[in-house]
Parts: sequence; structure tokens; C-alpha cells
Amino acid sequence: MKYYLGLDVGGTNFVAGIIDENYKIIEKAHIPAGAGRDIKEIIADMVKVSLEVVHKAGMQISDFTSWGIGMPSFVNPETNLLVHANCFGWKNVPIYSYLEPYIPLPIYIENDANCAALGETLAGGARGHENVLMLTLGTGLGGGIILNHKIYAGADMMGAELGHTKLVYNGEQCTCGQYGCAEAYCSATALIRQAKEGLKRNPDSFMAKLCDGDISRLEAKTVFEAMEQGDILAKQVIEQYIDYLSCAISSFVVIFRPEIIILGGGVANAGEILRKPLQERLLVNTYAGDEIGVPEIRLAECGNDAGLIGAAMLEKYGMDRNKKQGVEE
Amino acid sequence: MKYYLGLDVGGTNFVAGIIDENYKIIEKAHIPAGAGRDIKEIIADMVKVSLEVVHKAGMQISDFTSWGIGMPSFVNPETNLLVHANCFGWKNVPIYSYLEPYIPLPIYIENDANCAALGETLAGGARGHENVLMLTLGTGLGGGIILNHKIYAGADMMGAELGHTKLVYNGEQCTCGQYGCAEAYCSATALIRQAKEGLKRNPDSFMAKLCDGDISRLEAKTVFEAMEQGDILAKQVIEQYIDYLSCAISSFVVIFRPEIIILGGGVANAGEILRKPLQERLLVNTYAGDEIGVPEIRLAECGNDAGLIGAAMLEKYGMDRNKKQGVEE
Repeated sequence: MKYYLGLDVGGTNFVAGIIDENYKIIEKAHIPAGAGRDIKEIIADMVKVSLEVVHKAGMQISDFTSWGIGMPSFVNPETNLLVHANCFGWKNVPIYSYLEPYIPLPIYIENDANCAALGETLAGGARGHENVLMLTLGTGLGGGIILNHKIYAGADMMGAELGHTKLVYNGEQCTCGQYGCAEAYCSATALIRQAKEGLKRNPDSFMAKLCDGDISRLEAKTVFEAMEQGDILAKQVIEQYIDYLSCAISSFVVIFRPEIIILGGGVANAGEILRKPLQERLLVNTYAGDEIGVPEIRLAECGNDAGLIGAAMLEKYGMDRNKKQGVEE
Repeated sequence: MKYYLGLDVGGTNFVAGIIDENYKIIEKAHIPAGAGRDIKEIIADMVKVSLEVVHKAGMQISDFTSWGIGMPSFVNPETNLLVHANCFGWKNVPIYSYLEPYIPLPIYIENDANCAALGETLAGGARGHENVLMLTLGTGLGGGIILNHKIYAGADMMGAELGHTKLVYNGEQCTCGQYGCAEAYCSATALIRQAKEGLKRNPDSFMAKLCDGDISRLEAKTVFEAMEQGDILAKQVIEQYIDYLSCAISSFVVIFRPEIIILGGGVANAGEILRKPLQERLLVNTYAGDEIGVPEIRLAECGNDAGLIGAAMLEKYGMDRNKKQGVEE
């Protein structure tokens, strides 16, 4: 049995794990992210938690052939710099140079949304499929594309940024500075904003009661809960949100025609009350949908483990970054 | 020297050609499309013009290993039916069965926009590149994607329909029936519509004079000509058009991060007065453009030959449709 070492670097926790050939996690270790600290401290913790999981499993670094890392960022293959990681306030960090001295393995770094898509393809909702689109509906809108069973991240490996395609020309400003990005309409943050805008017009909505009148506490799940209780505003907000999301997905469908679409992230926890109407709207809102159909939308199955599983398997199913790997240089 | 047989099926002409290994056209034949005729007559003409070019070159069908065809449609690989070809009013046509009896070669059929992208990559503006995006700004907005030197048309080979991604949520109705498609804002047809809308507000524009007051005669080039003559409305219309187009392209850039973007079709004949400001707006309107830049936009170089060259080379650089090829079945 071959084993794979992965690390999922999130804004809250760093989770290291060892994955077997069947994509099962056999050991895990975690450490708080502690954002805002010095880069060197964060790098030290990425190494520490990875060594810890190897130790816990009674294994050694030499038992592995690579170290796969998922991060909320991407590496510029021209410069080998991590372009930015907003959650740490990083910009243009020589990540390979920082990590290489500590763990003598080829390092594979990939965007966390791409890792999640790979994890769900290998072990989750898209098992058995080779062409998969995954959207993570969280603070942002993460996108991951699997083509022929491998991560596709664009010709220069900095693409697949599905959340920053334009959905509403000249629309709401996105956190990225651009206007009308899909993320600005389809993330959990966007759903909350849309609900709050509705509450201004209709402050008596059940949504307000569910957060005890303190609208700053409104979450994505509050809107779904209110809808299930029969609240009309919540229903309208979610119908509008689903229409936005179906249009965003329709663009990815006409480009990629994936076999399966996976929904992950906090909003996807709503389950069938999101998935089913979204599937229906996708058919209506997609070019030639009436003639050739649209792919099935499924809910993610691996939860927070998807990114870790994908990171560990980057050596095998990541993009071909060999020329850019630290140790081969 | 190996030679390749191609056929470009357009709404006006069918052009057959023989291409050498260096992607040079060594012989050509054409026949009027004669839209509106019976399918069998059109099929007969597709065969006739292809046999004619082989004859003109003093060659035989057995000198070729495939027959590559570009059409304004796509084949559903599940059913082997040509889904639709609007210019002929066709829908679900068993194209392989119709063609196979006449020319005993493996047949490769691909969307014409994809063929044009391949032709420009092999012999035109994107020579030497392996990851290319081409947009054809004509009656519609055709899109072609080259990944790792091959056509990419989606997992089921019915994708890469870039013109039908959403640009303006809930916007103008597209000829496809959907709302807000990129095609409805970025095609030559859309530019003409935008100019006509402007003329309603400002009938004294030089654009009206250029068509002798008969606005139905307004073409895309009229708008560019009026702008060059200093017409303010034409300048506004083109600036708005370029902004729409840059936003559409920005979505493809954040997904694919191609090495080069090629512009073809009638609107691209405007040349630098389109290309240069479009390049500038693309940088402004693309996510992370300020950090990692945007690809270079170039004008197509092969003109009407791009589709023919690409069609002829489908055997080598098309998607892997072997399982669906007629003669192997």
C-alpha cells in the first residue's frame, strides 16, 4: 500500500493527513492557523503539523514521495511565488524556498478549491467520473475543474478562478475589486447581503426573528431556515440566489459540459432544498439545455476532508508542475 | 510529405482543401451552399466539392487518412447526430450515416469556430502556442479553445460554446433564446444593434450619412469608419462594445489563462483601433490582472482559411472521438 502526505492550509486550521491508495484518511493532525502572525511562524506550523501526522502514524518522511499542499492562493509558475493569500495578508511569498529546507520531498502546491474538486472526484460525490466541476459556496465562490481525472488550473496554472467570471456586467463590486463577479452574487456572503437588503424593505420577516433582531448575526442557514418556516421574503431571496447561481453554472456548463457538478461549502449544507430547484433552473437557464440536457448537480460528500484528500493526491492527479517543483530545480 | 483533406461548410460556401504538413493549402475548390435545399442535395455537394479538390490536385481518396469537416454545429457523441445547423434549418441529422457511403475515410466533424481556432494555432496568429483562445466576432460570437495544442470542446464534445456564457444577467435575449449571452453583446450583430439604438437618440450621427440615411444598411465597419471620422456617437458605441467584449474575454481568461487570444470575424477587420483599446480594457476588467497580467490579444491571420486548415487537421489535433468515428463502428 502506498501512502500520501497532504496539508490543507485554511484560514482557521491547518490540517495534515495521510491518505491511502483508496483515498481513505488513515491519520490526521491539526493546528490553529493563527492568522496575522509572522510568515516564518506560519511556515514553521505548516511543517510542524505535517511532521506530527507522520509521527502519529508511526511512519517516516522517507515513506512518502511528495508533500501536497492546498492553500487559498495560487503559485505563479514563472516566479515560483505564492501570488497572494488574503487570509494571512501575504503577497508574492517565496513559498517553496521557505518550505524546502524542512521536508526533503517534492512539494506540490495547489489552490484549495482545486484540491477540494479533486478530493470529491476521488472519494466523494463525483467518484467514478473524470470530468467534474465543483463550486464551493462559502465566504467566497471557489471553483475547481477536473478534466480527464486531473486538476485543470489553466495554461499558466493560475486559472480556474470560476468565482471571478463576470455574471452581472457592471454589477456589484466583488472583494477582488472587479464588478459583477459570480462570487459577488453566489457566495454565502452574497446570499447574506441579499437577505439583509430584503430585510430593509421587510423588517418583519421571520429571518429577523431568527437572529433575535440583530441582523448582523444573520447567516446563510438563517435564510433557508426561515424559508422552511414559510417566510415569503426568505423564499424570494433564495429563489433569486438560485437563479443567479444557475446562470453562473450555466456558463461553466456550456464551456466544459462536465459529467457531474458538485456543490460544497456552507450554503450547500442546505441540501435538497437548494440542489433540486437549482437543477431545474440550470436546465431552464442553459444554452441548448432543452436539446442536450445539463449535467447532474450533486452535493459534496467529503465535507472539510475534500481539500486534504485532494492535496495529498496532487502528485498523482495535479497539473504537471514538475518543471516548477522545488527539489528538481 | 503527408496531405490532409478538409471541408469547411459555411452558410454561403462549401470550401474543400488539401493541406500539407506545413499547414499550407495546396489546392482548393468551392461550391455555393444553397441553403434551404433538401438535406440529400447538400450532402451530395459536400461530397462533390471534396472529390473535386482531390481530383484537381491529381490525387486519390486513398492518398488521405481522414476527411475533416468543420460545420456551424456540433455532433452529439451519444447519438452521433448533428444537433442543429441553423443556417440549413437542420436538427438531429445522422450526418455520419449520410456521408459514409460516399468517401471511405474516417470522418472527423467539429464545430467551425473550434476549427478556426485550430487553424490560427497551426498556421496563423497563434503559431508556436499551445494554449489559445479564439473568438470569432461575426453574425454570432464563435469561440474556440486550444488546450495543449488540441481542440478542447468539453467533456461530451458539445462545449466550448463561449458565445453562450452569460455576460449580462437577465440581459438582452440572444438568438439562442437565453438572456444575456455574451453573443448578444459582442457579435457583429450586437454591435450593429447597439449603433442603431444610438442612432434613435442621435439621428444626426455620421453613421446615418455613411449609409445614406438607410439605417438598415448599417454594418459593423460603418461604426468604425464613423469613429475614425470623429463621430462622437460611433466612438461611444464602440467604447461600450469594447467594454462588453473585454468583460466577456476576462471570464475566459480567469478560467483558461491562455497564452494568446485571437480575434477573428468581420468585426476584427477593424484591426488595431479595436485590438489596442480592447487589450487595455481587458487588463482593467480582469481579476488579478494588475498582479499577474493578461494574455496578449492578436488579430487572426488566416482569414477565411482558418476553418479549412483546422478541419483538415482534425485527425491530428481534434478531440479524441475515435470511438465515435463512423468507419470504425
